[in-house]
Amino acid sequence: MSSWGKRADMLEHESDPYNAEPPLAALAGQPVTATDTFYSRNHGPVPDIDPDAWRLVVDGLVHTPLELSLADLAARFAERTLSATLQCAGNRRSGLIAVRDIPGEDPWQGGATSTATWTGVRLGDVLTAAGLAGGAAQVCFAAPDVSSLADPPQPYGGSVPVAKATSAEVLLAWAMNGQPLARVHGAPLRVVVPGWIGARSVKWLTRITVTTQPSDNYFQATAYRLLPPDADPDSAGPGDWLSLGPVALNCEVLSPCDGQRVAPGPTTITGYAYAGEDRAVARVDVSPDAGATWMQAHLDAPDGPWTWQHWRLDADLPLGAVQILARAWDTTGALQPEHAADLWNPKGYVNNSWACARLTVGAGPT
Amino acid sequence: MSSWGKRADMLEHESDPYNAEPPLAALAGQPVTATDTFYSRNHGPVPDIDPDAWRLVVDGLVHTPLELSLADLAARFAERTLSATLQCAGNRRSGLIAVRDIPGEDPWQGGATSTATWTGVRLGDVLTAAGLAGGAAQVCFAAPDVSSLADPPQPYGGSVPVAKATSAEVLLAWAMNGQPLARVHGAPLRVVVPGWIGARSVKWLTRITVTTQPSDNYFQATAYRLLPPDADPDSAGPGDWLSLGPVALNCEVLSPCDGQRVAPGPTTITGYAYAGEDRAVARVDVSPDAGATWMQAHLDAPDGPWTWQHWRLDADLPLGAVQILARAWDTTGALQPEHAADLWNPKGYVNNSWACARLTVGAGPT
Repeated sequence: MSSWGKRADMLEHESDPYNAEPPLAALAGQPVTATDTFYSRNHGPVPDIDPDAWRLVVDGLVHTPLELSLADLAARFAERTLSATLQCAGNRRSGLIAVRDIPGEDPWQGGATSTATWTGVRLGDVLTAAGLAGGAAQVCFAAPDVSSLADPPQPYGGSVPVAKATSAEVLLAWAMNGQPLARVHGAPLRVVVPGWIGARSVKWLTRITVTTQPSDNYFQATAYRLLPPDADPDSAGPGDWLSLGPVALNCEVLSPCDGQRVAPGPTTITGYAYAGEDRAVARVDVSPDAGATWMQAHLDAPDGPWTWQHWRLDADLPLGAVQILARAWDTTGALQPEHAADLWNPKGYVNNSWACARLTVGAGPT
Repeated sequence: MSSWGKRADMLEHESDPYNAEPPLAALAGQPVTATDTFYSRNHGPVPDIDPDAWRLVVDGLVHTPLELSLADLAARFAERTLSATLQCAGNRRSGLIAVRDIPGEDPWQGGATSTATWTGVRLGDVLTAAGLAGGAAQVCFAAPDVSSLADPPQPYGGSVPVAKATSAEVLLAWAMNGQPLARVHGAPLRVVVPGWIGARSVKWLTRITVTTQPSDNYFQATAYRLLPPDADPDSAGPGDWLSLGPVALNCEVLSPCDGQRVAPGPTTITGYAYAGEDRAVARVDVSPDAGATWMQAHLDAPDGPWTWQHWRLDADLPLGAVQILARAWDTTGALQPEHAADLWNPKGYVNNSWACARLTVGAGPT
């Protein structure tokens, strides 16, 4: 085992703050990601919170401010369990860095996407108990993990609009995959915002504040924004450009993996596709020959409306260098864009170009 | 004036059923499309309905079936006016036909997209008055225009899920751009389903039936589906492949138009972009040099949450053959796909590849 109870072969981008993703092969064929395999994205030191002393404050534009212990949450609100995929906005940044360097940002591969079952209570039920007051438009989350990456250094935070916050799928979760939430995943309580970038699923939640405006926290107001290629990320200020929320349609080849050597002949190619928020994956095409021909992959049923879908295709791989491509379509008939070069942006978000795995197919040792 | 009160320069694909779109230049710079310019997509003869004799039946899974005259609708429900863009699923099919022929389908250009203000009542208010009964999942629309294109020939129809039908933006409209609905646009009453393919905005509405399943009408069950390239459209049966609903992100260059000759020097390039349903347009990039360089267009504010947005960019066009490209990004950070060739499908729907206008820039007569 390496850090934080994670499997030994995690690709660790940073140890402090801890940022690591599983090898793609570890996600292959697994509708639910084991907790020791689930990616971990952090912006500061992992807090160590005494669950007995911990309280959740709900304040701002509410009729009845609340202060709730874990026991209060469990006693006052119905317990809910939900499967949901989380995906970091920086997922597949490595493909953008291959186009042009992105200094200061981790080269996440396609493993910054994982799926777990989450147990807790609906955020909407808690907000109903507090009572939304006039002008309530945004729900802000605050946590105690102070990030020195922020300017100025500050605890992590973020917000989502009231319409999303009160949707049935948004949970305050104390358990993941049937076990109490691990410290590195936000114990004792975290937000889970299915369909939105992972950054909004705030860990180690201590305060929920209902406001008229989005959070002014650095990670909402300044970071996690899609800048155009020619924008200067160092001078982009709060509110500039596009604030990321719902995730964009994406997919990845999980097996065989990019860079792998495989034996010639019949091979099952597998991967995930994920449409986020209000859309579903309608179809996945796979090309075993760099785009010359395409076939439709078999698409597994999702574990629910908020998860990725795994896909697979049997292909006969010829000897030599083989480039496998995959591309997903959503329920509006929209297709992913082809080239990472078109998507390059100064902070390296939303690389949802067609997935690619370059293989060497040979009779030698695999 | 040509047919149906439309402007003389409409591009008429068929006279019976009447199918016509405006020249792209007629849409340029106009947030609202004049009624004589609005595209018209029909599947059968245009009905001639006596508004005094007309009644709307509401039945199926409702507690109180209704039969309503126009006077009843106006008296019983609050009048609403809304700006909304409608877009035919076959918009820009001509770009797909350029890749490979699509027999039996009209070569719509980018003019099968138009915007009007619609006045009527909320479908949701009418459904509330009828009272949705247990199992209500779909809202089906029926009309009297018998289409010989259907197999077997049948009146036009379609359906949307209850969640969309009861959304505030879905109207039963009797007026368009402040005037009583023209016969060719569905008089005396039509559905307007903003954000969804135009096919669901059923004209000459006579019956609303609440059901557990989508409409079995040919135009819901069999037509308006995205088939994979290798599927046989003649053998694709009801329910096969993807039923189109919410529209996909798209854009078009409106001025100068594809094929136009323009004078060299400073030129304002304009167009529309439209994200449909639950997303908005976040950015439009324009390339005046076939994709070598890209600039961000100025994006006009939309006329509301359900309309296209117009964009413009000033560029200095060099002499010779110039290829202008445009591509839109939505609020998830998703970009349109590049090539129509990747999007080709047997019925020719959802061409949302990057827009292209090929110009000749010269000093001669323009």
